[in-house]
Amino acid sequence: MERTELAKFKPEEFRSMVRRGEWTDTTGGICAGYVQSNLAIVPKEYAFEFMLFCYRNPQPCPVIDLTEPGNPHPPLLAPEADIRTDLPRYKVFKDGALVDEPTDIKNYWRDDLVSFLLGCSYSFEWSLSAARIEYRLIGVYTSNIQCLPVGRFAGPIAVTLRLIKGTAAAVRAVQISSRMPAVHGKPLHIGNPEAIGINDIYNADLFHHPDVSPQTPDEIPVYWGCGITPQLIALQAKLPLMITHWGGHMFVTDRQVENLAIL
Amino acid sequence: MERTELAKFKPEEFRSMVRRGEWTDTTGGICAGYVQSNLAIVPKEYAFEFMLFCYRNPQPCPVIDLTEPGNPHPPLLAPEADIRTDLPRYKVFKDGALVDEPTDIKNYWRDDLVSFLLGCSYSFEWSLSAARIEYRLIGVYTSNIQCLPVGRFAGPIAVTLRLIKGTAAAVRAVQISSRMPAVHGKPLHIGNPEAIGINDIYNADLFHHPDVSPQTPDEIPVYWGCGITPQLIALQAKLPLMITHWGGHMFVTDRQVENLAIL
Repeated sequence: MERTELAKFKPEEFRSMVRRGEWTDTTGGICAGYVQSNLAIVPKEYAFEFMLFCYRNPQPCPVIDLTEPGNPHPPLLAPEADIRTDLPRYKVFKDGALVDEPTDIKNYWRDDLVSFLLGCSYSFEWSLSAARIEYRLIGVYTSNIQCLPVGRFAGPIAVTLRLIKGTAAAVRAVQISSRMPAVHGKPLHIGNPEAIGINDIYNADLFHHPDVSPQTPDEIPVYWGCGITPQLIALQAKLPLMITHWGGHMFVTDRQVENLAIL
Repeated sequence: MERTELAKFKPEEFRSMVRRGEWTDTTGGICAGYVQSNLAIVPKEYAFEFMLFCYRNPQPCPVIDLTEPGNPHPPLLAPEADIRTDLPRYKVFKDGALVDEPTDIKNYWRDDLVSFLLGCSYSFEWSLSAARIEYRLIGVYTSNIQCLPVGRFAGPIAVTLRLIKGTAAAVRAVQISSRMPAVHGKPLHIGNPEAIGINDIYNADLFHHPDVSPQTPDEIPVYWGCGITPQLIALQAKLPLMITHWGGHMFVTDRQVENLAIL
């Protein structure tokens, strides 16, 4: 099936496809207008500390739903969904090392696992497009901006770079994303990549868009927090077990983006 | 000292006064432009569940800061302050019963206590006034709107009623408060009190403004979530220990309201 056809799918239809193993690719452009989310799963023992960490770092880690221990159904944003099977691909970390990249996590599931859904900026792209803002997604980078540490959770913030065409469009993008703190909210940085420790925007360390032509003089670099951040944190925190989505392979919720906007 | 003089105080000056026992009254109108907050303290054992509860009920319970267990200093909003002494009055609940109403909680402090600061709508009143919105605070009521329950935490939402003069001003108040989800955000209800279980707005069960003249035809009733809600929850949850502020006797933070606004 083509990605453009999937834009018209309802979230439940798309998640069923994923559950049946019929889609294991990225989710950008899928289920137009619906909130997509990052995933971070930790044992209950660490859940409060991780919640505190997310709370102190709302731009990379905006919590939009979280589950009771052992319950795989996100109560607010998709109660019919199953967090164990409904994402196209996962990463499993043990003691700070990546040990598996499965397409479901049924074999890893335990009664003490708490799932955090963190809003993804794919979500506000529907609103950027609706405002006819021209932009290009360039990549995802490890910045030199540090998260506010909480207990064992510490590390750098991952950022997403978009080049936005024209200053009026960049200002509008600030406004639109500010309305949506649930999906990363306002930008973390505008302009000079070196100021946040990025030496070469054409060489992203975390995710690189395949066809990137050079920046033009009228393009403004705008950086948002990215929900890959918990994966950087997982590497440093060395939890016995932490499960995340595989970058770009998001969980599609039942909530429309405009209904998570603040105003 | 008069309340009007205290409007000009810096939060640190006012908190010092409270700490010395020189102010045990309510805090409305004090430290102009600064965020005031409700307080809810629970043992670490219940902190994750309570966090989850607040997370699911952001309108009555918007968490604006929370502490590591045993640490009485709110790291984000007032690191120099001490949660044990800097509020004018507290309520101590044991096993679901109110057992004390002290002016400090030093005798109750333990190494496992986690403090939640929840934004207070006193904060956005500075912005309503700046916009020359005419309104009257009438009272705080137990509504029939139920919180989304989480584990042992369940119960009704407490609401604050303001009568706002004119429909344009009511619309502007919706806009202004929507910018500030950290201090209860958008209204929960507009209009008919009976629709949310309030039979008589002139007889508030939780807090009643002393001089309330009858509603005039051009006044619109607008209801916001209220941070007294955790006190209603405490009664039902029967935790071994839960400490809250005494209604209206808030914690004054170092953060200016405009700096907690979303945009």
